[in-house]
Amino acid sequence: MASHIVELDDVHRAAIIHAGAAVMPAALAVAEMTGASGRQLLEAIVVGYEVAIRVGEAVTPSHYYFWHTTGTCGTFGAAAAAGKLLGLTREQLVWALGNAGTQAAGLWEFLADGAMSKHLHPGKAAQNGVLAALLAKEDFTGATRILEGDRGFCRATAPQFDLAVITAGLGRPPYKVEENSFKIHASCRHTHPAVDITLDLAARNAIKTAEVAAITVRTYGTALNITANYRPDSVYAAKFSLPFCVALALKRGRCGLADFTPEALADAEIQALTARVKLERDSELEALHPARWPAAVEITTVQGKTYKGRTDFPKGDPENPATDEELLDKFYNLASGPWGEQRARTLAKAVLNLERPLVNHKTSPCQPQ
Amino acid sequence: MASHIVELDDVHRAAIIHAGAAVMPAALAVAEMTGASGRQLLEAIVVGYEVAIRVGEAVTPSHYYFWHTTGTCGTFGAAAAAGKLLGLTREQLVWALGNAGTQAAGLWEFLADGAMSKHLHPGKAAQNGVLAALLAKEDFTGATRILEGDRGFCRATAPQFDLAVITAGLGRPPYKVEENSFKIHASCRHTHPAVDITLDLAARNAIKTAEVAAITVRTYGTALNITANYRPDSVYAAKFSLPFCVALALKRGRCGLADFTPEALADAEIQALTARVKLERDSELEALHPARWPAAVEITTVQGKTYKGRTDFPKGDPENPATDEELLDKFYNLASGPWGEQRARTLAKAVLNLERPLVNHKTSPCQPQ
Repeated sequence: MASHIVELDDVHRAAIIHAGAAVMPAALAVAEMTGASGRQLLEAIVVGYEVAIRVGEAVTPSHYYFWHTTGTCGTFGAAAAAGKLLGLTREQLVWALGNAGTQAAGLWEFLADGAMSKHLHPGKAAQNGVLAALLAKEDFTGATRILEGDRGFCRATAPQFDLAVITAGLGRPPYKVEENSFKIHASCRHTHPAVDITLDLAARNAIKTAEVAAITVRTYGTALNITANYRPDSVYAAKFSLPFCVALALKRGRCGLADFTPEALADAEIQALTARVKLERDSELEALHPARWPAAVEITTVQGKTYKGRTDFPKGDPENPATDEELLDKFYNLASGPWGEQRARTLAKAVLNLERPLVNHKTSPCQPQ
Repeated sequence: MASHIVELDDVHRAAIIHAGAAVMPAALAVAEMTGASGRQLLEAIVVGYEVAIRVGEAVTPSHYYFWHTTGTCGTFGAAAAAGKLLGLTREQLVWALGNAGTQAAGLWEFLADGAMSKHLHPGKAAQNGVLAALLAKEDFTGATRILEGDRGFCRATAPQFDLAVITAGLGRPPYKVEENSFKIHASCRHTHPAVDITLDLAARNAIKTAEVAAITVRTYGTALNITANYRPDSVYAAKFSLPFCVALALKRGRCGLADFTPEALADAEIQALTARVKLERDSELEALHPARWPAAVEITTVQGKTYKGRTDFPKGDPENPATDEELLDKFYNLASGPWGEQRARTLAKAVLNLERPLVNHKTSPCQPQ
């Protein structure tokens, strides 16, 4: 959930869902409760992702207009992960999903105010999913056709949906968790393709920021709808400003959590670079979305020199995977604050060997110092 | 909430909502937390009813097809009651309503299975409303246009809605709580008009059940859609069977909580009477619904004698109010079990003088023995 707040969570492109934010807290809480093995925890997470993403794919994009998928479809994933760990019978698991669906909530209206509801949604999805599974364990019944029923989740929340997507290939690899993308930069995923190219061009050409005359970013419409903000008025808003993120990347050579600060927001050079970013909707790139999330960047210097690049898969997509080293670096950057570097390294080692040790709140290295 | 489970809760006809099931637990919990006076508790309940019912009226009936109003609109009422008791500022109260709306949930799909989700919905409405208010007290922000916004509650959940209803006459008496109906019988409200007439005809004419040849019930379509069940297979289903309820009323002269039992379900005479009930949709009565919930009953004996009656407002409607004595009788019947008769009488006295004593979990007579 913290990952959702700082914009560093994972994302599934087709479902447009941050499954981890809902599934992980649910799985960790119930694994602690049941004294699950690391392997059981991992299995529950895989199951939770499978369910959350499949339901998300079935109702996206029509559901996504009103509903925050991470909150709504995330509830099903949380219930499935919790139910797996609780060893529910088949019948109980159906009830758990029924009572997950009847609690599923999360509207996008908060976006108009930039309100904090976004942070509430995945937490409630996890809580509601766990509650549904715990109730089912006590034989508290639920709807058996919550997805496909006449007054069920899909008909109530999605003008168009495709039930076949939910079961196509179910139970066989590749699993949905493998289609997940990981963020390296601490900003809206729609800013990442342009940030990746900018970082690459700057690193390979040693571009001097003082000499930059213009930066043109071409991309798909949804990215511009959400991120075409030239005057972000808060650090949080800056994470959703494509011009700011590109300028930050050019100046700092990074867009990590530590780079989004009030100081960066007030930095005159970053502000000047932000103003030089030109955004263009590109119909060719548009046609590729949402299967791909592409962008093209062209940087022109005052001397008239141009540098160009394009990517269809930002770093962290399955087609352009982050290396283990990059993901570990991300982890150390985030975990060293609360836990200290030494403890963060111990924790990473434990997680990388999760099939073996027990997850238990008494022996876990996850407790903050 | 217990009232919702045993089908004895209050109901607002136009909003089709059981406001008490969501508002009361929220108000009681927060009143305990804040050490509120009885008067403050009552004010919070009035505010909670006002909000829940007004939102319900705005979205009913189109919202009601998919959504269980008590769960969805009840969340707004619970947040308003909790917010009033917490002394939220105007801005915080708006956030509380915003985060109530973004958590609002409850689908009718469980009906197809007769599943227990119905009992979950008002509890979650109360919990979610209290959470929204507590978060607002900590300045956790929410959407400021959750009802009317482009991606808000009304557009997301109701094909047709009327925002003007929400504010028409707001802040002036008569308050919505006064439009509320109270149940005397422990069954679906749609069975009540016919049960009332049956009880009245039986009492006034000393009808012998063995001599009853036929019972014809004419009423509006919605009642028949939900209650035309001749073979209820559980006590819970019996509460939603109009033929069974009429037969029970004729045999027992009551339809109280204690009358709905497995024994009554297996009673051969009640079964025989149930089979003799004939249901007819009546277009004249249909035209009056939902402003009125009317029914007409005709009982014919084997000797060819007929008894007739009609009511447009079942007992407990504001137009046909239950007397204080009847409501107290209902209370004693329900409360004497868990608390004992003496304690129930003490509690009733305390509630009837609620403006005066403090509501406090240490001194309250509400604790079960």
